[in-house]
Amino acid sequence: MHLGDLLQRARAASHQLRKQPEAHRNRALLAIAEHLEANPTPVLQANLQDLEAATELSPAMQDRLRLDSARVAGLARAAREVAALPDPLQGSRALGPGRSGIQVSRRRVPLGVVAIVFEARPGVVIECAALTIKSGNVVILRGGKEALRSNRVLVELVRDGLRAAGLPEDAVLFVDDPDRAAVIELLSASGQVDLVIPRGGKALMALVDQHARVPVIRHGEGICHVYVDADADLSLATPIALNAKTHRPGVCNAMETLLVHRSVLVPLLQVLGPALIKKGVELRADLEALTTLGVFGCPAQEATAADWATEFLAPILAVRTVGSLDEALAHIERYGTRHTAAIVTKNADAAERFLAEVDASCVLWNASTRFNDGGELGLGAEMGISTSKLHAYGPMGLTELTAEKLVVHGQGQIRQ
Amino acid sequence: MHLGDLLQRARAASHQLRKQPEAHRNRALLAIAEHLEANPTPVLQANLQDLEAATELSPAMQDRLRLDSARVAGLARAAREVAALPDPLQGSRALGPGRSGIQVSRRRVPLGVVAIVFEARPGVVIECAALTIKSGNVVILRGGKEALRSNRVLVELVRDGLRAAGLPEDAVLFVDDPDRAAVIELLSASGQVDLVIPRGGKALMALVDQHARVPVIRHGEGICHVYVDADADLSLATPIALNAKTHRPGVCNAMETLLVHRSVLVPLLQVLGPALIKKGVELRADLEALTTLGVFGCPAQEATAADWATEFLAPILAVRTVGSLDEALAHIERYGTRHTAAIVTKNADAAERFLAEVDASCVLWNASTRFNDGGELGLGAEMGISTSKLHAYGPMGLTELTAEKLVVHGQGQIRQ
Repeated sequence: MHLGDLLQRARAASHQLRKQPEAHRNRALLAIAEHLEANPTPVLQANLQDLEAATELSPAMQDRLRLDSARVAGLARAAREVAALPDPLQGSRALGPGRSGIQVSRRRVPLGVVAIVFEARPGVVIECAALTIKSGNVVILRGGKEALRSNRVLVELVRDGLRAAGLPEDAVLFVDDPDRAAVIELLSASGQVDLVIPRGGKALMALVDQHARVPVIRHGEGICHVYVDADADLSLATPIALNAKTHRPGVCNAMETLLVHRSVLVPLLQVLGPALIKKGVELRADLEALTTLGVFGCPAQEATAADWATEFLAPILAVRTVGSLDEALAHIERYGTRHTAAIVTKNADAAERFLAEVDASCVLWNASTRFNDGGELGLGAEMGISTSKLHAYGPMGLTELTAEKLVVHGQGQIRQ
Repeated sequence: MHLGDLLQRARAASHQLRKQPEAHRNRALLAIAEHLEANPTPVLQANLQDLEAATELSPAMQDRLRLDSARVAGLARAAREVAALPDPLQGSRALGPGRSGIQVSRRRVPLGVVAIVFEARPGVVIECAALTIKSGNVVILRGGKEALRSNRVLVELVRDGLRAAGLPEDAVLFVDDPDRAAVIELLSASGQVDLVIPRGGKALMALVDQHARVPVIRHGEGICHVYVDADADLSLATPIALNAKTHRPGVCNAMETLLVHRSVLVPLLQVLGPALIKKGVELRADLEALTTLGVFGCPAQEATAADWATEFLAPILAVRTVGSLDEALAHIERYGTRHTAAIVTKNADAAERFLAEVDASCVLWNASTRFNDGGELGLGAEMGISTSKLHAYGPMGLTELTAEKLVVHGQGQIRQ
């Protein structure tokens, strides 16, 4: 389908969809879950083909691409969970009387047509379709080319679910075009697309910088930091750093750089160094940390400036020694991507300064960076993690897929 | 000052400003109010020079440009009122425990550096400076060239107030350059400006469409509608329409097009037509309304398609006859600018459909469009009226000048 046609169909579907009652929107989500549960085979087969063609991808990237029976079942469960969430469009919020006695309230409305440009993780099709259908938005999906076969099958399954529920199937549309020009066209579709959500790294964000004419909420790269303070409890620091780096290295809230206060460098690396090596992590350290790692028999290479600015999305960790909290804050200010940063310390003053001064969507004290996730934070399912400050900052869920308009009830009031 | 220098100074001031306690921020606002009250003469003199040079402006535009003693006193009062508002950066909002027992809260932070491009209304300098200082944001002001002298004096007065309060004077910066290229440079300053707020009409929005690389919240033109339904109480419709058009024709929430159901065209125009003429309003009507107006001795000309798409910002009104609520909704969908729309009716079903289906930041039932204003709605002072759906929709106040980051307190939790 030509993208111009697709945009017209999106607009038409948006007019229909925003009038649908909650029950119909939920019915579609349940139909999608049932289709996934009843017949996962076509999805698994398509995914196998994608995987077979993806031999050049790193193991972490292959992990992102992979769907197995358990993951497909998880997607069906996710669709059911979104159906069970409160309707983001329901009811209105009274703000009380304005001057002149008018009654003022806020009412949530869908944004309209939302486009999402995402990496090679096919589960995003189900997660995002569920959230956008639930919130009355039309979604245009444009996934990574490595997942093209998986995405096609998943999108058709979603559209079957929409049809089964009596909703317009064009509520979920797929850009079946791996060419970069299609992304540029989406970013330029001012007046036809209400929001573009780009998820990805530097290359995608550069494309956005250059071409976006449509409002954008960036879900940009996560150069996430853990700072182990002079006053850290090292029995917490080691498991937090290990978890942040190795639990799932290919995702955006994984740690990429560990900052260590000089006064705890030796005791921390004595335990953490070998543990990271055992987990297969490649270490890139500044000279001081490099020497210390060497003492404990941990292979490492010297870090370059580029390492501080890299989202590895892989079992690679940059390690830097700092002399103070201020140095750690300055490093994060320079290299962080407003995503996630954690401090490990027993010192409440140091923690409070870190939490207040680090400019990131999620700041943590004595917890793993991996908690910057809608489900873990208790916020529910999410479209991704926004690194934009406007409208959504951090996990972007159902509420952030709506806007609030003002509704005024008067009895003939005029302004004096 | 070169714009590049100005952007660097903005960033440096932002780092200082965001650490200032509320008391210091308020002290600056009170100092500004005192300066305005103690010595309004330089402001009034500069404004007189602007007015003398603005002979080509329409009377409505001259009214926007004009400052007199009462208006300057009103600006001082506005600064005091903002100082008295609750601190938008204070406290945090507990979201409760996440999975794994981490404690999750939200904490408001300033956006950073906000640029505003505005029309020839010099009071905006004080209103916006007060809101941005209060919310810990640096503001870069770029006003219409007709108000250049007034703006210069007001900006210096604000910077004096900042200095007097011990705050960085660069918290408020002024682009003293009437050239359009300066606006383009602001719109392109990705990474240096966190938000641009363009206030204005089609020409400015076209510039934004073409050049914006920075997140933008549009405060676009207001083609605002009043629809007088078949079931309208005409004793309400006449004063509402008169107020919406003539109370202050040069502002964005003034009515530009009146839609009238055929069945009440004659009785409505019999009263409203002469009342509008008496107030000096020029009428541009479709043939049916034109004929009716003629019957009642009201001069009018035939409306062209362009009139439906024009924000007159002047005592000019387009009048269109419609045969149904659906026709009125379709007209607003096509020509409205997501700003403000009102319905006058006794029919609750018709009102509910109108309130639900019109896609605008503020929809009103039996009240004047002039109420789409932060003060009138009980929302407090505002930067303007956003016609963007993201982040702010309708009046944009203190809260919308902040973002909420997530703050997590753990006891060593890692993700399982």
